[in-house]
Amino acid sequence: MSAPAIKGRLIGVGTGPGDPELLTLKAARALAEADVVAHFAKLGRAGNARTIVAAHMRPEIVELPLYYPVTTEVAKAEAAYGEAITGFYENSATAVAAHLDAGRTVAVLSEGDPLFYGSYMHLHVRLAHLYPTEVIPGVTAMSGCWSAVGLPIVQGDDVLSVLPGTLPEDELSRRFAASEACVVMKVGRNLAKIRRALATADRLTEAVYVERGTMAAMKTARLADKADDDAPYFAIVLVPGWRKRQ
Amino acid sequence: MSAPAIKGRLIGVGTGPGDPELLTLKAARALAEADVVAHFAKLGRAGNARTIVAAHMRPEIVELPLYYPVTTEVAKAEAAYGEAITGFYENSATAVAAHLDAGRTVAVLSEGDPLFYGSYMHLHVRLAHLYPTEVIPGVTAMSGCWSAVGLPIVQGDDVLSVLPGTLPEDELSRRFAASEACVVMKVGRNLAKIRRALATADRLTEAVYVERGTMAAMKTARLADKADDDAPYFAIVLVPGWRKRQ
Repeated sequence: MSAPAIKGRLIGVGTGPGDPELLTLKAARALAEADVVAHFAKLGRAGNARTIVAAHMRPEIVELPLYYPVTTEVAKAEAAYGEAITGFYENSATAVAAHLDAGRTVAVLSEGDPLFYGSYMHLHVRLAHLYPTEVIPGVTAMSGCWSAVGLPIVQGDDVLSVLPGTLPEDELSRRFAASEACVVMKVGRNLAKIRRALATADRLTEAVYVERGTMAAMKTARLADKADDDAPYFAIVLVPGWRKRQ
Repeated sequence: MSAPAIKGRLIGVGTGPGDPELLTLKAARALAEADVVAHFAKLGRAGNARTIVAAHMRPEIVELPLYYPVTTEVAKAEAAYGEAITGFYENSATAVAAHLDAGRTVAVLSEGDPLFYGSYMHLHVRLAHLYPTEVIPGVTAMSGCWSAVGLPIVQGDDVLSVLPGTLPEDELSRRFAASEACVVMKVGRNLAKIRRALATADRLTEAVYVERGTMAAMKTARLADKADDDAPYFAIVLVPGWRKRQ
């Protein structure tokens, strides 16, 4: 009987918000040491996280791209979508586990911070209790955005609410009114609704729109000055707190 | 007449949550290039941010420690406290500006992320409109904490509320009930109150306590299992979201 194999390590690696220099030293070391680098992407695309770490990919590293199933024909609320995506995460975990069982260290890339809305989480909950696991936090997209535009977001006893733009309009406006600072994620098609909810809460003039924060193609404007409601999915709206300054 | 002096650059540098390897590549480069490194600290203490970047401090760099005025005898709500702290920030900005006027690049250290509850913000609002300024975001303390304990915090359409532990008990419990995920900052003497508010919202069993996240001296426990209410000011309580997992 052969000796039991030594399991590889699973590492969730936050790549930061987009600027390749916003990778941490620890993430760079993890990529220098990993045997396998896994990354989520749409079929035929490189994926943002993979693009961010391009300079750290050694030629001998094994790449494990995890391609989301094509889902445009199926609405998100439908059971078929849920089954397809669950099956995809199960298969992805199995593919990663095969490398871990062979003793290989697998770094799973995650744009921003892995446990903050990251796809890595779907692997973490399936594998972290079975294999030695480490999560390397990253700079979030929201930190990247408020830093890129130099906007102080919270100070002192401020409350910050991080809100998906998918919330109903009345809930958005209620939360805008009830927190010193807000960050709205997943803006995309929700921008007109977000704008109306901010106006209802009397905070539209404070809001700042940021698209592709920290990247070369960054666009930003006071939301009140933005003439259209066109926005990519990953745009962010910032409503700063710290209204009583010392 | 001499030529007008070229002004130095102001750089707010996020140092991350504590582990020196969680510094970004960009922050390391800023420290390699800066003429002056400023950092806030209590009198006679090194300050966490300064400790985090110790390995990056070149011998020839000029250090500008900014020591908070002694405030233990004065309650925070009193006017005398407000005046003392405002005067301190004014004087700190003047000291930084003197270096900038002399053409020196000044890196101001900020534990975590500079514009997220950071002391740097008090310099930013006084100087950023007068000098070329850049803010380098960092990994926040909260990201460091949930990563160190491997706790998925938010996914999908979850709302995250970041709450100071100083809020009244009824407001805390209301917000615990109304958000999928919560992070409580500034725990310290507020832990007994936070615990009661979590129990009222029926979420005490979900909460995780983290002290000195990502540092060697890290302590963590399920809050329900923590026997006492002793906690340092910078401890964090995490209430994870993502309750409908795929």
